Amino acid sequence: MVDRRGEVVVGVDFGTLSARAVVVSVADGRERGSAVRAYRHGVVTERLPAGGAALGADWALQVPGDWWEALGGAVREALARADAVPGQLVGLGTDFTSCTVLPATVGGTPLCELPRFAERPHAYPKLWRHHAAQPEADLITAVAAERKEPWLPRYGGKVSSEWQHPKALQVLREDPEVYAAAERWIEAADWIVWRLTGEEHRSLSTAGYKGLVQDDHPSPAFLSAVHPDFADITAKVAGPLARPGTRAGALTAQAAAATGLPEGLPVAAGHIDAHVTAAAAGTLDPGHLLAIMGTSTCLIVNSEAPADVPGMCGAVRDGVVPGLWGYEAGQSGVGDIFAWAARTAVPEPYARQARERGIEVHELLTELAAGQPVGGHGLLALDWHSGNRSVLVDHHLSGLIVGLTLDTRPEDIYRALVEATAFGTRTIVTAYEEAGVPVEEVTAAGGLLKNRFLMQTYADVLDRPLHVTVSDQGPALGAAIHAAVAAGAHPDLRTASAAMARTHRSAYLPDPARAAAYAELHAAYTELHDHFGRGGSDLMHRLRTLRRRAG
Amino acid sequence: MVDRRGEVVVGVDFGTLSARAVVVSVADGRERGSAVRAYRHGVVTERLPAGGAALGADWALQVPGDWWEALGGAVREALARADAVPGQLVGLGTDFTSCTVLPATVGGTPLCELPRFAERPHAYPKLWRHHAAQPEADLITAVAAERKEPWLPRYGGKVSSEWQHPKALQVLREDPEVYAAAERWIEAADWIVWRLTGEEHRSLSTAGYKGLVQDDHPSPAFLSAVHPDFADITAKVAGPLARPGTRAGALTAQAAAATGLPEGLPVAAGHIDAHVTAAAAGTLDPGHLLAIMGTSTCLIVNSEAPADVPGMCGAVRDGVVPGLWGYEAGQSGVGDIFAWAARTAVPEPYARQARERGIEVHELLTELAAGQPVGGHGLLALDWHSGNRSVLVDHHLSGLIVGLTLDTRPEDIYRALVEATAFGTRTIVTAYEEAGVPVEEVTAAGGLLKNRFLMQTYADVLDRPLHVTVSDQGPALGAAIHAAVAAGAHPDLRTASAAMARTHRSAYLPDPARAAAYAELHAAYTELHDHFGRGGSDLMHRLRTLRRRAG
Repeated sequence: MVDRRGEVVVGVDFGTLSARAVVVSVADGRERGSAVRAYRHGVVTERLPAGGAALGADWALQVPGDWWEALGGAVREALARADAVPGQLVGLGTDFTSCTVLPATVGGTPLCELPRFAERPHAYPKLWRHHAAQPEADLITAVAAERKEPWLPRYGGKVSSEWQHPKALQVLREDPEVYAAAERWIEAADWIVWRLTGEEHRSLSTAGYKGLVQDDHPSPAFLSAVHPDFADITAKVAGPLARPGTRAGALTAQAAAATGLPEGLPVAAGHIDAHVTAAAAGTLDPGHLLAIMGTSTCLIVNSEAPADVPGMCGAVRDGVVPGLWGYEAGQSGVGDIFAWAARTAVPEPYARQARERGIEVHELLTELAAGQPVGGHGLLALDWHSGNRSVLVDHHLSGLIVGLTLDTRPEDIYRALVEATAFGTRTIVTAYEEAGVPVEEVTAAGGLLKNRFLMQTYADVLDRPLHVTVSDQGPALGAAIHAAVAAGAHPDLRTASAAMARTHRSAYLPDPARAAAYAELHAAYTELHDHFGRGGSDLMHRLRTLRRRAG
Repeated sequence: MVDRRGEVVVGVDFGTLSARAVVVSVADGRERGSAVRAYRHGVVTERLPAGGAALGADWALQVPGDWWEALGGAVREALARADAVPGQLVGLGTDFTSCTVLPATVGGTPLCELPRFAERPHAYPKLWRHHAAQPEADLITAVAAERKEPWLPRYGGKVSSEWQHPKALQVLREDPEVYAAAERWIEAADWIVWRLTGEEHRSLSTAGYKGLVQDDHPSPAFLSAVHPDFADITAKVAGPLARPGTRAGALTAQAAAATGLPEGLPVAAGHIDAHVTAAAAGTLDPGHLLAIMGTSTCLIVNSEAPADVPGMCGAVRDGVVPGLWGYEAGQSGVGDIFAWAARTAVPEPYARQARERGIEVHELLTELAAGQPVGGHGLLALDWHSGNRSVLVDHHLSGLIVGLTLDTRPEDIYRALVEATAFGTRTIVTAYEEAGVPVEEVTAAGGLLKNRFLMQTYADVLDRPLHVTVSDQGPALGAAIHAAVAAGAHPDLRTASAAMARTHRSAYLPDPARAAAYAELHAAYTELHDHFGRGGSDLMHRLRTLRRRAG
């Protein structure tokens, strides 16, 4: 048996604003060094770096050169901190925000790097949160529903404006010259690996979750029905599909020079940031649910069998780990809703108190909310301020609070909103289980982990022990685990994850009395959920219609 | 015909914290002078002036000597300001908060003025907002419902803890010695007239609205079923009933000395503050609804015929004006709800801006809310933060807001709450009409009149012209009108009111486009109202139960 005790891998997580590199031990995932580099242009929402007209509402672009520059800086610094010698380095893995997608030449050059397209907004990568392709997403969904496309149910019946096809269709409609010049339409996750290795692969995961690939690509007939010139999109996105943990190639001399890593280093296939986190959180086995909790929540679980779970963001064979079906569900608003409460329902004396104590308003509200008995505030909320992704897939739903009295305080509202998001998670867990996707364990990751009261509330509402990730490098560690497998240091992702994941098991245990009280409240939540979300009352839709008409 | 051009009357309004005297012209109600005097002890909620143990939660007492002292001071000062000579004075009228009620001897001495009872809380007047008799109110309601007492429907099926019987029963249960010593159990409205004239009368109005008198008093069998020793309460409250506008007697020498008014001056029967306002607002004719809008809203209308309107606070023959049935409905929370929003959902930057501009937060929110198109905020609220009096009579209901998004701002919530209270008023107007009590005109009075946006919203939601009172002395002017009738200066209240009421007719006209949009929103409000208030969902009750259990 090879002695791997000294071996390390490098994982690089390409986030929304920066790239983070981490050097970890292959044996146990322990961090040896890490570094972060911000993207020079961050998120481009106003005007291109080259100038030109103002971008429209909901636009969000990035600059590929920024990624490359941040990669080189972060990896070099992480290596220096890790004090690792070149001989110890066995692999490199990356993950990326998704669906962040760009037009490129057949040689891999982003169109925006060609002088003739430098001032054309559609030549730039569209960041995941570019939401200006909503009309295109609506059209694609409508045509797919009309034609009863067999892949539509795998996406909960709805194509997101964030995905590959709506964004490509927006280019075709608004700048057909760029569309025509785009020989390749490629996820940044795949483009970065292409640039690192000189070989173009497509991540099976981005193809499955963001590219509508289920066994095959959408049919030419469907694409032509969407737009007469759209059938060729398949040729632009098609390519050899790489399963998670696959070796995509070896580091080129040019990439080695840029990063300080050895030429020829094995490089893993690209992957989605949320999904590599599942490796870092040790949740690749069937029935191990991962909840990545931030401004919104992403819920990923693997299962032996395919199943139609209502309201999925996607269900993809081999999508998270080879050999299993990977299911992804989502809550559209979580941390975003708490932020709304903190800017809307926090009166001046609270703000002043927080400032005087040197704490955030969120901390103060949490502190005041935490001591309450379950049900003590008398409130119940629906966490639909951003609509509902799973399980209702209805972005025109809205938030609701009931039980208000003249005694209702800001901390009561805050607590009710925290509880509502936990009820939302429980609703999704129930939907998985009822559709035949077992959920045996729950592990949490993400920015909300730092709120201990919130995590305890989730444990109580879910009535299950809650494991949490220990590393705050979640995705980068996951990318490193993918690197270890691609390098052959572990035989497969599940083995690698078992060895290298860093979690605190049963960090939160449910309190039986609180869990019982929450079961009653969750039943009430379900009543509201079904009344307003499943056709009992279409009031929320009518209010939105009135709002649009008034606007 | 007698020349009445120089004649004046004095009206005195006994409010919660002060007495207000106004001297007005008999001919046209024009104000000649006014003055206010605060009660020395205000509202006694902590400890008696004589000391002793702390009062319980929800207790609220007053001191009769304070009323007398404030009366003398306010009348003297108002007379001085009015520059009226004694020969011009033709009558005195009073109104009082109700049900404010006290135990007295057969000679009219309040028990609390007897040295042996000076330290006994139950010997003091219980102010209208003394709410510690809730268990007694619940018991009385339950027994009346059980026995199907015929008078119960006239009160919307519920006896308020503020009324004469619950407060008396609390004395009987908690201090039977005081109860036994109370030869008379009398409204402050009647007690003050007794002290002014030396003659004891009972206002038909307080008896009808607060004393359960419908044709007759509650039966001895009923009272005994409530408590074996309670049947004698009828003897303590019985007395000659005086209809509104009746001459109760003439000013005694002692009262003349205390007030500076001439001995022998005709004095009108006592009356309820809200109800005399109907005279001041010119709404005594059938079908003229008066909305007195403050922390809560009181809605009074007269009709030719008796009718069972759901959720009335009371329906009393001759109760507001002789010859007609007087109906009173109520909204438990109105201004109170706006105050809740202002202290809960107003973030620091709003508070700072209001302070810098030297305006109230309410003004700022109103300004920001006023410019919006109807439905623009996408919200709908139920105005039940204090429960619902009319038409549901359910104090365990609670407030609700639906339509929340991450873009919802404090001014949106504020506007939605203003609209919700207007929808609540419209619901009551509809209930009156459907029960056969016509509502032809609507006049508003009270503290909320100063918010012009709010008044316009009410006009739009009600889709009717809104008249408003001009005098800010509403009740005192009403008391003066009663004085004019008692003195014979006008033949009856309706004639006097027509001459002396001070209103601005059609101060607010509905905008047809806004009214149409509000009709749609009111239909949605009615859906929510009926779903949560009429048995579609008992969620609000369950939340309250959970809250109580947790507390």
